[in-house]
Amino acid sequence: MPAMQPVELWKETGREQTMGETLIHLPDQDWRSGTVLGPTHEEVITDIVRTFVSSYKHLPINLYQIQTKFRDEKRPKSGVLRTREFLMKDAYSFDVDLEGLNASYDKMYAAYCRIYERCGLPYVSVEADSGAIGGDVSHEFMVATDAGEDTLVKTVDGSYAANVERAEVATLPDPGCDGQQPVEEVHTPGLKTIDEVSRFLHFKPSDMIKTLIYEAEYYDLAKESQADMRAAEQVRSGRLSAAAGGSFSEIIAVLIRGDHDANEAKLTKVLGATTLKLADEHEIRNATGAEKGFSGPVGLETRIIADHAVAVMHNAVTGANKTDYHITGVNPGRDFELKEVADIRYAVEGDRAPNGQALEFEKCIEVGHVFKLGTKYSDAMKATFLDQDGKSRPCVMGCYGIGINRIMAAAIETHHDDAGIIWPMPVAPFHVLICCLDIKNDEVSRTCRQIHDTLESHGVEVLLDDREVRAGPKFKDADLIGIPIRITVGQRSLKDGLVEVKNRDSDDVQKLLPDKAIEEVRCRVRDALAQLHCEQI
Amino acid sequence: MPAMQPVELWKETGREQTMGETLIHLPDQDWRSGTVLGPTHEEVITDIVRTFVSSYKHLPINLYQIQTKFRDEKRPKSGVLRTREFLMKDAYSFDVDLEGLNASYDKMYAAYCRIYERCGLPYVSVEADSGAIGGDVSHEFMVATDAGEDTLVKTVDGSYAANVERAEVATLPDPGCDGQQPVEEVHTPGLKTIDEVSRFLHFKPSDMIKTLIYEAEYYDLAKESQADMRAAEQVRSGRLSAAAGGSFSEIIAVLIRGDHDANEAKLTKVLGATTLKLADEHEIRNATGAEKGFSGPVGLETRIIADHAVAVMHNAVTGANKTDYHITGVNPGRDFELKEVADIRYAVEGDRAPNGQALEFEKCIEVGHVFKLGTKYSDAMKATFLDQDGKSRPCVMGCYGIGINRIMAAAIETHHDDAGIIWPMPVAPFHVLICCLDIKNDEVSRTCRQIHDTLESHGVEVLLDDREVRAGPKFKDADLIGIPIRITVGQRSLKDGLVEVKNRDSDDVQKLLPDKAIEEVRCRVRDALAQLHCEQI
Repeated sequence: MPAMQPVELWKETGREQTMGETLIHLPDQDWRSGTVLGPTHEEVITDIVRTFVSSYKHLPINLYQIQTKFRDEKRPKSGVLRTREFLMKDAYSFDVDLEGLNASYDKMYAAYCRIYERCGLPYVSVEADSGAIGGDVSHEFMVATDAGEDTLVKTVDGSYAANVERAEVATLPDPGCDGQQPVEEVHTPGLKTIDEVSRFLHFKPSDMIKTLIYEAEYYDLAKESQADMRAAEQVRSGRLSAAAGGSFSEIIAVLIRGDHDANEAKLTKVLGATTLKLADEHEIRNATGAEKGFSGPVGLETRIIADHAVAVMHNAVTGANKTDYHITGVNPGRDFELKEVADIRYAVEGDRAPNGQALEFEKCIEVGHVFKLGTKYSDAMKATFLDQDGKSRPCVMGCYGIGINRIMAAAIETHHDDAGIIWPMPVAPFHVLICCLDIKNDEVSRTCRQIHDTLESHGVEVLLDDREVRAGPKFKDADLIGIPIRITVGQRSLKDGLVEVKNRDSDDVQKLLPDKAIEEVRCRVRDALAQLHCEQI
Repeated sequence: MPAMQPVELWKETGREQTMGETLIHLPDQDWRSGTVLGPTHEEVITDIVRTFVSSYKHLPINLYQIQTKFRDEKRPKSGVLRTREFLMKDAYSFDVDLEGLNASYDKMYAAYCRIYERCGLPYVSVEADSGAIGGDVSHEFMVATDAGEDTLVKTVDGSYAANVERAEVATLPDPGCDGQQPVEEVHTPGLKTIDEVSRFLHFKPSDMIKTLIYEAEYYDLAKESQADMRAAEQVRSGRLSAAAGGSFSEIIAVLIRGDHDANEAKLTKVLGATTLKLADEHEIRNATGAEKGFSGPVGLETRIIADHAVAVMHNAVTGANKTDYHITGVNPGRDFELKEVADIRYAVEGDRAPNGQALEFEKCIEVGHVFKLGTKYSDAMKATFLDQDGKSRPCVMGCYGIGINRIMAAAIETHHDDAGIIWPMPVAPFHVLICCLDIKNDEVSRTCRQIHDTLESHGVEVLLDDREVRAGPKFKDADLIGIPIRITVGQRSLKDGLVEVKNRDSDDVQKLLPDKAIEEVRCRVRDALAQLHCEQI
């Protein structure tokens, strides 16, 4: 599928907006105007399918490609883990109904499990947030490693696991309160952060209510998605200010306990918003009458959403909506109305899962993501088919992605030692490395070549290191690049007719006749592949 | 290698200019400023090599990738033949000296011949123009087909062949002249084209001198390439007007016989120019004093370059440098100086090669191009290594490209009939197609599955058409998609225990027992691959 795509397709689904700045546009000149670089291909594939699929007889189908994606990552980092250009295997399924989608999804899910297993990756799959891709159900495939930049939240007993973006947090018990204090204004000149204020007033950060002012945007009321109907309702109730192009925005105060962090993924979902961003200084002043750092819920006239943890706070501290002032003795429910309370924060150490189990945190790499999209794209783009009764219905879609670069990264992060990589056999660039120690010696050189050719003729992938380099650096390089099996051929042992076989992950060295070595190596490769249920050589 | 690249690399080699508008820039904002989409990867690979290669011990090396290229083609056309985004296999060799380059080039050249042979393509290789890639020697691999958009020029006896961009034309004999007429001005109101003027004055187009006004640009005099030295010379002689950024331009009148076409590739090379474009109305008026359509060499003060064919014209017609007027009786050498005469046109029917043989023309698809780059890139980007004497020397480079999409196109164009594609076995998406005619019949369905599985277990690539579609359309589709061998399994012949085997390119149908059919098909696949020297199944 093309990397360069017409933005018209993205307008059809409203994702020109929801993708926001992730979408890289070409300059506004000639044919380039309205051309974007594909960050993902739901729109293109839906356009292809609506062009070629017209009957239930054409379904189900599942189409895939391996292709470069382009995304404007704000902070590219962690080597190949987060880049603006990366390789992805993406598949898209089209079914006649939800039952069909479930079957396609289950098949692909099982295939993904097999793929990661065969790559030798210790993966887990968890429910995930669908983000800008959308849909109701999605699962991520995660590989735990400290080098990861995603966080996995799970219970010790394994009964619950989720991406931290999505992980639900059990509501906190109400600790009760010895006596509600009155609200009191305190002078906090120039103190704006939770840290500064709590230290100054001798409170703990957990005694403070962080009041974040957000601007939520709701796009295109004409489309009857759930989010939009919700937005339409808001408009009717007069909360939203009309903006150009069928989109509407509102200012929202979000209340989070001082030691917690707002989870924008959860918040976006709760609001049914298209996009969400922190308000700027000007908007904050407009909404609160005070500078940034002094916002609070008491007396505020904007819409207010409080996190569960805020609802059970007592005698809290928060901004006074007056520059250089905070207030103490704030009691939610008494001093401001708790109209909307929801789980809108990230889980932290000490939190419990909804099932009551304690939550643990683990850094991980996301190596895959599968989504039940339903009819989000087929509705918007009119990708319909005629069913057996001649009735037009939208295709029911799923989509499935594997981060190719990340598989390499995850394989290395989970299989290495201080000396370098230890590739799992199935994803190793070569199965076997032959270290030729005395390249100018004819017999050594001939033996290397013969072992190389024989192994290759049996389907073993062999790299021959015939560089003119001393043994020490040669072994160092061998450890660094991490080919699973090393055969060393040198003048000294070859005098006795022997070569050496060694696995990268072990110190055991076997001295064998060349023919025996070939047999031994073939067995080791075969066994390693068989262990991961991979196709045999 | 990355598709998104820093334009700084392209500035180092001057190709930000020479690539001209082919280079697609991202918008001028944030990190995108100065980011281009790679149309080719000489700069990136040279940057990689200068970073990692420092000694003659690291050389020679040859690095390759298969990756998407982005080029701003002004006129994308002919399906996959000319697109703004396409797949390319590109390789780059680095050697210590010219001898090394020649060896690397010869090896790659031979490999390319084997590749095209194995793809079943009837290719020829010809000397080609190096264009914006540069270097002294380059060869193109061409597949003759009417659908092609390149033109191959060759002699009947095969002693000479070249891309029309480069094909040399023997100078024409001087026909002599019965008597030179005087120059006479004729009124040609509103008549601007060769056709209009020649018809009006009752001359043949071959009696006319077409005077094209070009603006040639010479970039960066600081760099001491041949082209630049030439430009520097021009500047010294006061011909060029200085422009910003180290580049200089001049206006040139190019004289071509009325029935010939100017060859800008040849012209650019003769001039040593960086880029060349037709002058606009304003520049033409400045240079000639007349409107476009009335330019001529007589009395013109700009630099004039004449094609060989113009030099032997007599009593010719051309523009008078006066709006609505032409002149007749023009004799080159007499009426204007023949200072610069060169081969700067395209060959036409009737032309002869420099060896005297008549030239023939053939439409073709360019499926590959190999270049001896020399030190063009390594000089500009300082990709040097220390030789055995510890002396710093630039790497000597070659580059080698295969148009993947074009291989598919060329295979189809040279292997099809009215009913559809006839894939050569090695590049066929599948070796064998099984047409299952009565999918609901258990025995038919079981037989298909068994044939499919057995063939696959032997390494044969099999597509099973188990759609619920009638036999007619199924056969039509089979012919259309062109899998080389078809096995038909239907209720009727299966009653006698038989299935049918048929090649796509023949009407012969063999009725065989399923086991025999499997054997027969394996042999046919094996033979077809062996015939093209391909790896065996």
